[in-house]
Amino acid sequence: MSRSKIDLHGMLSNLPLFRELAPNEINDFVAATREVRAERGTVLFRKGDPASGLWIIVYGQVKLSFPSPNGTEKVLQIFGAGQSFGEAVMFLERPAPVYAETLADSLILHLNKQTIFDALAQDPTFARRMLAGMSMRLHQLVQDVESYSLRSAAQRVIGYLLQCDHGPSAQQTTITLPATKNVIASRLSLTPETLSRIFAQLAHEELIEVNGRDIMILDVAKLQAYQ
Amino acid sequence: MSRSKIDLHGMLSNLPLFRELAPNEINDFVAATREVRAERGTVLFRKGDPASGLWIIVYGQVKLSFPSPNGTEKVLQIFGAGQSFGEAVMFLERPAPVYAETLADSLILHLNKQTIFDALAQDPTFARRMLAGMSMRLHQLVQDVESYSLRSAAQRVIGYLLQCDHGPSAQQTTITLPATKNVIASRLSLTPETLSRIFAQLAHEELIEVNGRDIMILDVAKLQAYQ
Repeated sequence: MSRSKIDLHGMLSNLPLFRELAPNEINDFVAATREVRAERGTVLFRKGDPASGLWIIVYGQVKLSFPSPNGTEKVLQIFGAGQSFGEAVMFLERPAPVYAETLADSLILHLNKQTIFDALAQDPTFARRMLAGMSMRLHQLVQDVESYSLRSAAQRVIGYLLQCDHGPSAQQTTITLPATKNVIASRLSLTPETLSRIFAQLAHEELIEVNGRDIMILDVAKLQAYQ
Repeated sequence: MSRSKIDLHGMLSNLPLFRELAPNEINDFVAATREVRAERGTVLFRKGDPASGLWIIVYGQVKLSFPSPNGTEKVLQIFGAGQSFGEAVMFLERPAPVYAETLADSLILHLNKQTIFDALAQDPTFARRMLAGMSMRLHQLVQDVESYSLRSAAQRVIGYLLQCDHGPSAQQTTITLPATKNVIASRLSLTPETLSRIFAQLAHEELIEVNGRDIMILDVAKLQAYQ
């Protein structure tokens, strides 16, 4: 039975690290997880403290920061509900390089590192499943970052195309690119491959038609509104 | 001595998986790495093939896709120079769920899975260092994704503020928000915390001044141009 109203098993199994483990394998980690209720302004650990394990935020907010020599601080990162932190220093057995403080009343889980280390030492398939979970999450995130970058790159290309359009404000219009695609890509700080990919994407969505250097804008308003 | 003109050691040590390993630990992996030169259109593996190891692209492009029942295909992801793929299925010892084909003439490294599995089985600190490298990369990427999302959220907020401005096109102007910040956050599909964070950020950059519901735009043109 659960010793808590929090679904510890569910919280843990949602972390990339544990996502590929079998439900019964997660049970050992549930048993090594402690709930920490911390008011706003609680310091969870200080720079130089030995890394004790993995932290997972159920609700609330935690700030990781460097104390700087002149007394001010530099905030490194802010974590919120569902996020975990402290994995890297835990695995490397290094002292904490930052200090951690709650920015709001928070409920945080702390998973003791020894339990994870024991599991890794006893069974190499554990390590492999943890690495698999991390790999998948990593690939997803890389894809997210790429789609964001590509989206903003597409906006740059669209801005350029609409700026080229000096004709009457028509529904459709054709632009002749004033230079090679490579030159235009470079002017837009894009690789030629990215520019081609964006043209292909916009053509696929029937916003433009590309014939060599001639770009026909099929629907000016729709292109302007493109996300 | 290197057996190749490619800096295999450098390529491997740049992967999140190996970034925390000592240089001499990477040597074993260098020895188990094979160079694959593949013309455009080469199939590296098919759906259902056993996962043989980890793939790293030196140059070129690889497409992972599902063959769909009606004969068309769904492209899952496209990888380019410096990127790796195949980790998750390798670690899980599952057959490939997709097929992989080069989209351009490519040079790809293939690192045999057994060498990685042996390292994991022999020494649990190996697993910990691999997990540490993955953890760090994961946190970086989460931060990237958040900053992208926050940037586009800031653009939504700015769009809203500029739209509210119905006064003469002045350099400075003051807007009184027509509803509570919570209501406006919800209208902009933001959490109230994100809206506050964006207001704080814009105030920090001296673009606006916030006094309760009154938002003074300090420089309309600069706010319009905000990235």
